[in-house]
Amino acid sequence: MKKILNDPQNFAIDTLKGIYAAHPDSLTYVNDDLHCLVKTNLSDKGKVGIVTGGGSGHLPLFLGYVGEGLLDGCAVGDVFQSPSSEQIFEITKAVNSGNGVLYIYGNYSGDIMNFEMSSDIAEMEDIKTDHLVCGEDVASSIKGEEHKRRGVAGIFFVYKCASAKADELASLEEVKRIGVKAAANVRTMGFALSPCIIPEVGKPSFTLKDDEMEIGMGIHGEPGIERTKVMPAKELAHALLDRIVIDLPYEKGDEVCLMVNGLGATPLEELYIIFGEVSEYLKEKGIKVFHTFIGEMATSMEMAGGSVTLLKLDDELKSLVSKSCSTPFYSQKNL
Amino acid sequence: MKKILNDPQNFAIDTLKGIYAAHPDSLTYVNDDLHCLVKTNLSDKGKVGIVTGGGSGHLPLFLGYVGEGLLDGCAVGDVFQSPSSEQIFEITKAVNSGNGVLYIYGNYSGDIMNFEMSSDIAEMEDIKTDHLVCGEDVASSIKGEEHKRRGVAGIFFVYKCASAKADELASLEEVKRIGVKAAANVRTMGFALSPCIIPEVGKPSFTLKDDEMEIGMGIHGEPGIERTKVMPAKELAHALLDRIVIDLPYEKGDEVCLMVNGLGATPLEELYIIFGEVSEYLKEKGIKVFHTFIGEMATSMEMAGGSVTLLKLDDELKSLVSKSCSTPFYSQKNL
Repeated sequence: MKKILNDPQNFAIDTLKGIYAAHPDSLTYVNDDLHCLVKTNLSDKGKVGIVTGGGSGHLPLFLGYVGEGLLDGCAVGDVFQSPSSEQIFEITKAVNSGNGVLYIYGNYSGDIMNFEMSSDIAEMEDIKTDHLVCGEDVASSIKGEEHKRRGVAGIFFVYKCASAKADELASLEEVKRIGVKAAANVRTMGFALSPCIIPEVGKPSFTLKDDEMEIGMGIHGEPGIERTKVMPAKELAHALLDRIVIDLPYEKGDEVCLMVNGLGATPLEELYIIFGEVSEYLKEKGIKVFHTFIGEMATSMEMAGGSVTLLKLDDELKSLVSKSCSTPFYSQKNL
Repeated sequence: MKKILNDPQNFAIDTLKGIYAAHPDSLTYVNDDLHCLVKTNLSDKGKVGIVTGGGSGHLPLFLGYVGEGLLDGCAVGDVFQSPSSEQIFEITKAVNSGNGVLYIYGNYSGDIMNFEMSSDIAEMEDIKTDHLVCGEDVASSIKGEEHKRRGVAGIFFVYKCASAKADELASLEEVKRIGVKAAANVRTMGFALSPCIIPEVGKPSFTLKDDEMEIGMGIHGEPGIERTKVMPAKELAHALLDRIVIDLPYEKGDEVCLMVNGLGATPLEELYIIFGEVSEYLKEKGIKVFHTFIGEMATSMEMAGGSVTLLKLDDELKSLVSKSCSTPFYSQKNL
């Protein structure tokens, strides 16, 4: 295992220490627990709070989207582990300003259980919560069983739209309605060229041959749908988009946001090469790209690979996704 | 070689095609040559133009720093190759608005030769140019021979300060004065855990054993000063900073900008762990960190490793480094 760290057992906590030391004006924690991350300037104006959570090892996901114009808090687990219900609840209490808290998180059993338990505790303290479980990885379950799909990089768009709505001081129901709409219009397909190593484990959870890649692999190394020779960029773009476009479906005349995400070790140069092919493909299909997000938006530590995500826009989502936001990990001006 | 691309010979050009397709509102090119990148909204107000250039394979360096509040143009070479003097000159002509053009680039022989030849051509067309050759890698030459040092990630700070000064419509002499001051106050040390592969070559230019790292390696794989077992984060932070701090030197009471840069395959989590140790080290030395930049600022494709850079501030540099800027690859609000 070739990693720069101190103690593998402290990987997540040492990462958090670095993050708080680097960004004291933006991020802090509650309940004396580094895992309970909230933004420094929490609203007291009755804004619906938005909280996420999940395992470490995916930066900038999940905590990197806590900040101005985005989320209010994030419960941080150990590498690829769910945070606890207590940690989620402490954040809930901190970010609630009277009008409830929306939980937005990925479709993983540990996270679902802990967010639900946190809701139960919150109810006893008269804090209203609601849930939005995101799963948009087309490779992880067949059409018709979308509720079984894994959440991957596309959760960013759900965060972005719901958070912009919450900033308008909309009700919990309205913020959730927007989040549900964004989630329903997002689809992702990923690919992996190499595994990553969980520091506490010390060896890769799977192997790929020198000339192999896996189409549809999840961000924790969950099995994909096809193991194949490494494809040229154009062929790969088609393999991913053929599955994405047919699934919603995205159709001629649609306007979308496009994300080309790197999983960790794949250079930005390669992401732009892939993007070039994705862009051509969408042009041929008559699908218009409103804005492109390229870079590491949701990673799996040092895994090589990436993902492509589409968000279908209507006027409402377009307006919300376009609003400026700023966190230590992600900033955009008004689009 | 496990890369997503179409033709290895077209790696740089396909990357550029993707970049122009992704960011049409921000970036364009002149002379019908994709290698001649300029920002879309060039100033016509007599602003001194600032141009950089260098090989591909280091995104977001070099072209990623072309944009609002930063550079005006970048001549893009093939992977790890200098752009041509003609390409540099075409950009020079495009960005010149009457008050001259400053070239800021790294200390590599091919780049020096081509920027100097471009200056000669510019002189014949009555365009005033000046040069700022950056080299701040402490590992690449001994103290007293700073002019022999390689330029690495620290060039970002030189870009940032000089560009902010140029935006004040300062003269070429003034803009250069600021760039020279920033360059004189920057020092970097890097480390590598794995090599990268030049697509056209298809195999790594060096190897490191499974438990080895190299301290002081350059961003093209130039030899460092020590090959050692992979160090814990704290030990690594000390190994880098012991060399950086003594070199300028940075002293108790100094205020600095700090950059912890990833070379490509090193996860953001590890950069934050290193940052935590760097931060402790500087605190112990009484060196105050004004602002921290963490992430991939200058890479070497899929190389694992990173670098630490300090910029010593005075009031003038602090004010300039703090100004907002926005490119498709890097944005900051006013600090």
